[in-house]
Amino acid sequence: MSNIYDTAYELEKNLREASVFTELSAAYTAMREDQVAFQLFEEFRNVQIGLQQKQMTGQAITDDDVASAQAIAERASGNEVIQSLMAKEQQLSQLMEEVNAIITKPLQELYAPAKD
Amino acid sequence: MSNIYDTAYELEKNLREASVFTELSAAYTAMREDQVAFQLFEEFRNVQIGLQQKQMTGQAITDDDVASAQAIAERASGNEVIQSLMAKEQQLSQLMEEVNAIITKPLQELYAPAKD
Ligand SMILES: [Ca+2]
Ligand SMILES: [Ca+2]
Repeated sequence: MSNIYDTAYELEKNLREASVFTELSAAYTAMREDQVAFQLFEEFRNVQIGLQQKQMTGQAITDDDVASAQAIAERASGNEVIQSLMAKEQQLSQLMEEVNAIITKPLQELYAPAKD
Repeated sequence: MSNIYDTAYELEKNLREASVFTELSAAYTAMREDQVAFQLFEEFRNVQIGLQQKQMTGQAITDDDVASAQAIAERASGNEVIQSLMAKEQQLSQLMEEVNAIITKPLQELYAPAKD
């Protein structure tokens, strides 16, 4: 039986060579090279990080926080370069969720409510 | 090159057969069969779920929440059966973090701050 780490490295290689990853990589480079798109991307990311930090430190998310997150999300998703990047991110995120569901199945089963 | 899903299934098999997983599984069964330990485990889990739900819905975590989480955590970790389970959970969690770091490296690199 192969080692769990060897298999993990093989999975990393598979991911790096998967078309969804190479396409995401190209979409990211295109965004970095577009000044308007890059600025929107950074603004969006900063708002996201701010919200995550609030959640992680147990602070309440205000209506204003939600409103400003929605506002930048709308502006960012109105940009075509960002749109292409987000579409690829969505595809990759779906793939990673599927991969994660497969590899964590033994744990899901272990902690599933017993049927006795 | 092998398919990313095939590799994920191989990783699942590796995990299921890893000694850390079989030992965790045994520790979990032992806890389920011990009435005192099982009750502490369920109390602890309910408090954790309550906190997570607050975080996910953007509610503030109060000092009382923190205090009651600490109280049940102390009572649970004073139980030997729970102690053994938590030690195995910790080991498995470390393994999963390592595996996750390996397989998500391409993404970490992609989003790393550019050095230009
Ligand atoms: Ca442009
Ligand atoms: Ca007992």
